[in-house]
Amino acid sequence: MEFFDIKRVEEARAIMLQHLTPQLEAEEVPLVSALGRVLAEEVRADADIPGFSRSTVDGYAVRARDTFGASDGLPAYLTVIGEIKMGEATSLSLRAGETARVATGGMLPAGADAVAMLEHVELLDERTIGVLKPVAPGQDIISQGEDLKAGELVLGPGRRLRPQDLGVLAGVGRTRVKVYRQLRVAVISTGDEVVPPEIVPGPGQVRDINSAALVGQLQAEGCSADYKGIVKDEAAALRQVLQASWDYDAIILSGGSSMGTRDVTAEVINSLGRPGVLVHGVAIRPGKPTVLAVADGKPIFGLPGHPVSAMIVFDVVVRPGIRYLMGLPPLERWRGRILARLTRNYASGGGREEYLRVVLQEKDGEVLAEPVLGKSGMISTMVKADGLVRIPLGKTGLREGEIVEVWPFPE
Amino acid sequence: MEFFDIKRVEEARAIMLQHLTPQLEAEEVPLVSALGRVLAEEVRADADIPGFSRSTVDGYAVRARDTFGASDGLPAYLTVIGEIKMGEATSLSLRAGETARVATGGMLPAGADAVAMLEHVELLDERTIGVLKPVAPGQDIISQGEDLKAGELVLGPGRRLRPQDLGVLAGVGRTRVKVYRQLRVAVISTGDEVVPPEIVPGPGQVRDINSAALVGQLQAEGCSADYKGIVKDEAAALRQVLQASWDYDAIILSGGSSMGTRDVTAEVINSLGRPGVLVHGVAIRPGKPTVLAVADGKPIFGLPGHPVSAMIVFDVVVRPGIRYLMGLPPLERWRGRILARLTRNYASGGGREEYLRVVLQEKDGEVLAEPVLGKSGMISTMVKADGLVRIPLGKTGLREGEIVEVWPFPE
Repeated sequence: MEFFDIKRVEEARAIMLQHLTPQLEAEEVPLVSALGRVLAEEVRADADIPGFSRSTVDGYAVRARDTFGASDGLPAYLTVIGEIKMGEATSLSLRAGETARVATGGMLPAGADAVAMLEHVELLDERTIGVLKPVAPGQDIISQGEDLKAGELVLGPGRRLRPQDLGVLAGVGRTRVKVYRQLRVAVISTGDEVVPPEIVPGPGQVRDINSAALVGQLQAEGCSADYKGIVKDEAAALRQVLQASWDYDAIILSGGSSMGTRDVTAEVINSLGRPGVLVHGVAIRPGKPTVLAVADGKPIFGLPGHPVSAMIVFDVVVRPGIRYLMGLPPLERWRGRILARLTRNYASGGGREEYLRVVLQEKDGEVLAEPVLGKSGMISTMVKADGLVRIPLGKTGLREGEIVEVWPFPE
Repeated sequence: MEFFDIKRVEEARAIMLQHLTPQLEAEEVPLVSALGRVLAEEVRADADIPGFSRSTVDGYAVRARDTFGASDGLPAYLTVIGEIKMGEATSLSLRAGETARVATGGMLPAGADAVAMLEHVELLDERTIGVLKPVAPGQDIISQGEDLKAGELVLGPGRRLRPQDLGVLAGVGRTRVKVYRQLRVAVISTGDEVVPPEIVPGPGQVRDINSAALVGQLQAEGCSADYKGIVKDEAAALRQVLQASWDYDAIILSGGSSMGTRDVTAEVINSLGRPGVLVHGVAIRPGKPTVLAVADGKPIFGLPGHPVSAMIVFDVVVRPGIRYLMGLPPLERWRGRILARLTRNYASGGGREEYLRVVLQEKDGEVLAEPVLGKSGMISTMVKADGLVRIPLGKTGLREGEIVEVWPFPE
């Protein structure tokens, strides 16, 4: 059964997504452990933020209209009726011609609608100031509820929490938050020639590079990934390790890119439940021998054996599925793209969407992308590279000097 | 002591960096926990990778010259002398006119220098194939050491480990790796009006937003950050909490943006050791009231009280210092920048380098940046925003339609 029905990348992704069901079990975690987690609840402001109108500068709370027309030559003279203490409610109330001293963050007294900055004020005596510039209503204050109104939606489910999101959650009184539990993914390498990293490979053997790289890619996405070892290219062994990994949310295999072993993988997956193999072969370079499957509800992704291929197929094809399982919105690649000028011609093989590794450097304010040549079996090319350039299906190559979109690898 | 000597952003960073000493204590961690950590050692290939020349396709190992001139009409006929078993050394050796079957990843027999893909071969009988296309020397193989040569430098100190770096480390036999221990940073909020998130603020009080946001920013950078609570704007209390945080690698304070408290902060820091306050006031908007200090070897960063200001000053001014302490190379902002078209005019205040919050969206293949207006006391503006646009000192604003560089917030 050789690649009878190779799918385009978008087709393969679409078929996969149709058969996946997001993992939406929630758990509660402390805010301090919530960075990068995916929010599982709607969070609304528990009260107006701030809860009172406050000054954003050091100065004097005023009724703005009392300052209209003020100038250096003709200051607006105001009577100081007191000073606002930080962190306390003030009982002061301004009448016409009155003012009160307030520090940054302090509460405005009743009647005040603006603050005259200290820099624009002259002190005449203990009880009198001159305001040297007119102050507009609302100037240098934050009004009650201006940041968030009580009941306003702050963040919703599916949001990956960023530092500022943790800030706003603290602001609405949350020290714990409901997030989807981490997606648990089993990572398995296959191949009679593959040995664990701690072994010195004998002749004909190679160390397992893919598992470490894939565990890293899954962790970078926010998954919990476990390395489940290396399995021989043999149906019974493969079935056993898949069954032993069945309590994970998803299983990622890599290796077994030779024809016979690809068929074994597909047959074993099909024997474990329906619908079984959904996609067998994707029109992507590197990475054609890719298997996307769901058996009895369990997503199983079979990646190629070459490390570069495995990593690129993970990024391009599997990662959108992983994100969907995590409850995240679709990946918007443009958000991370860098535009760069290609430093040399690159001929694409055609017939498949291709991903070119590039090194980025800045020269004279321009970003240059230098293709990294080298076979897809060479992990060193991924280590050297800073990102990938997508060459769409049907495009026969890229020209020196062309502006290309680079998807940078995260630092 | 009011901002007697405000420093430009680059100046402030340079002064700070001169006084910092990287934290280069190393610890050994398992590879599976090394993602994002900073490598503390030189890693070299322990052997050639791969350790033998191997096929990258399913096919027949050949002496390339035996296939020169072959075509569909006139195949090169070769005698099959055996099949290479995966994961084992082969004792086969090709003489002129001989070939051996090999699967993807299999070891080449002696004498072979290329592989003819199965697709380009016709099987004539058990012992004879016809190669239908000439094969170039080196074609569809990876030679011994082509990925990495024994002794070759793989990764060096100061490298933040990415998924592919974990892959190559596994490939050279590393299951544990030396990394700098995580930078430990204490985060403290100051202000008489600030209460912890779990408290319902009374009149005149606000919840501590900054600490959660700053802990998040530090964690995102790979630090271990501890929230040390809220301290009153009072010298004795501030001194006490700073001294209690002295076994951290760095201390970050936020708040205390009003004049009196700024002076208190500076005096307390100066009393704790030399050189004390290095920079008091940075020409950045938002964020002018920033203190950069080193007291008796301890870096202390004093950020403004407004949450937006605190986060932006952390990102622009403090983060380069944190990265330097972590042993990382300087941040290259161009690596993450997105070019976008500004959707409206924006007038900058002038006199300070300004950071404008923007929302990004894609429209007709173009990325648009929409300014987020709102005061620097409003965390909701950071939650809404996707990134920052830098307006350099001296530029009076940005025009609608102008292409701007956006530093996106990480997802």
